[in-house]
Amino acid sequence: MKSKFIVIEGLEGAGKTTAREAVVDVLKAQGINDLVFTREPGGTPLAEQLRTLIKQGIEGEQVTDKAELLMLYAARVQLVETIIKPALARGAWVVGDRHDLSSQAYQGGGRGLDTQLMQTLRAAVLGDFRPDLTLYLDVTPEIGLQRARARGALDRIEQESLRFFERTRERYLALAASDPTIRTIDATQSLDQVTLSLKATLQAWLAEQA
Amino acid sequence: MKSKFIVIEGLEGAGKTTAREAVVDVLKAQGINDLVFTREPGGTPLAEQLRTLIKQGIEGEQVTDKAELLMLYAARVQLVETIIKPALARGAWVVGDRHDLSSQAYQGGGRGLDTQLMQTLRAAVLGDFRPDLTLYLDVTPEIGLQRARARGALDRIEQESLRFFERTRERYLALAASDPTIRTIDATQSLDQVTLSLKATLQAWLAEQA
Repeated sequence: MKSKFIVIEGLEGAGKTTAREAVVDVLKAQGINDLVFTREPGGTPLAEQLRTLIKQGIEGEQVTDKAELLMLYAARVQLVETIIKPALARGAWVVGDRHDLSSQAYQGGGRGLDTQLMQTLRAAVLGDFRPDLTLYLDVTPEIGLQRARARGALDRIEQESLRFFERTRERYLALAASDPTIRTIDATQSLDQVTLSLKATLQAWLAEQA
Repeated sequence: MKSKFIVIEGLEGAGKTTAREAVVDVLKAQGINDLVFTREPGGTPLAEQLRTLIKQGIEGEQVTDKAELLMLYAARVQLVETIIKPALARGAWVVGDRHDLSSQAYQGGGRGLDTQLMQTLRAAVLGDFRPDLTLYLDVTPEIGLQRARARGALDRIEQESLRFFERTRERYLALAASDPTIRTIDATQSLDQVTLSLKATLQAWLAEQA
């Protein structure tokens, strides 16, 4: 099977880290062992520096929504061009913790940035590059943030209002409903149940590709 | 007179710092004393962090042309929205060391990035915001780089090939020829002569605005 780019998406506390382990289990069971892991924003030294700027911001300075969006795309294009595309080209599978859908949901939905701007930027920067499959872990913000808080201090974006995350989730759901490459998993279930659902979803998708 | 945004542009070693002093002299002689100075990339704490990333790069990592461009626009929109527009709104004049024309010339001309991408990004991020006047100091790369080298070590972008700066200058000249808000000053002359030309150009422009 041709190598694929599989992305795990969802709100804070949706269970992306556990989901990644489940993805790896399924892929290895299929004999797919050459795996590259990415996270966004980040994944290259430059992109990780941008991640820190985005996540921590600057003491006393309000980061504008557009500057945030452009830093996210700078980090993304650096990762796509220097890590993801070369990995896929040599036959590795890439498993990503977040990708473009996060910007569509958080900056487009949560922050309410203009949809036209979002689409224009995406097309101008990434062209037609897209994940082959996105596994979207759907949780309510209440459940997700409760889990995220249990992990420790929240960063600049995690400190947004509940309403921000509700708008973000609504955009995730709307985009998932209109895009067959996005599969939604109910992540409000118990962790074991989420893992079972995710594995079944991924196995079914892999069978479709064969 | 309504407050204005005046930008000084040109290759490395064109004499932008000296030109700024001449601009200040002319404005003050006209009784314009509320001045805000900016430089790009930079001019806010966040934008200065991006400037460092852009200028120094990351040891061992090739910064992609698109990531560089997006970092430049992230820094620019942060500066425009948090410093330049508020300053103009309260009646201050803004004198900028570089602005969008630098990206058009260096990234569009020098790096050869797609013109459509450049225009799309500019329009999406900045809308119709533009300098009222751009003073473009035109030097050959040979003369400019000789002066820049005399100042000290060259940064990542200053270390580009002569051909890169030739393409950058060609784009500067082409854009200046088609845009009446850009005035070209021959900066291959002696510093005193450049200052005289610049002052005369600015005074003539101010008289047109009155």
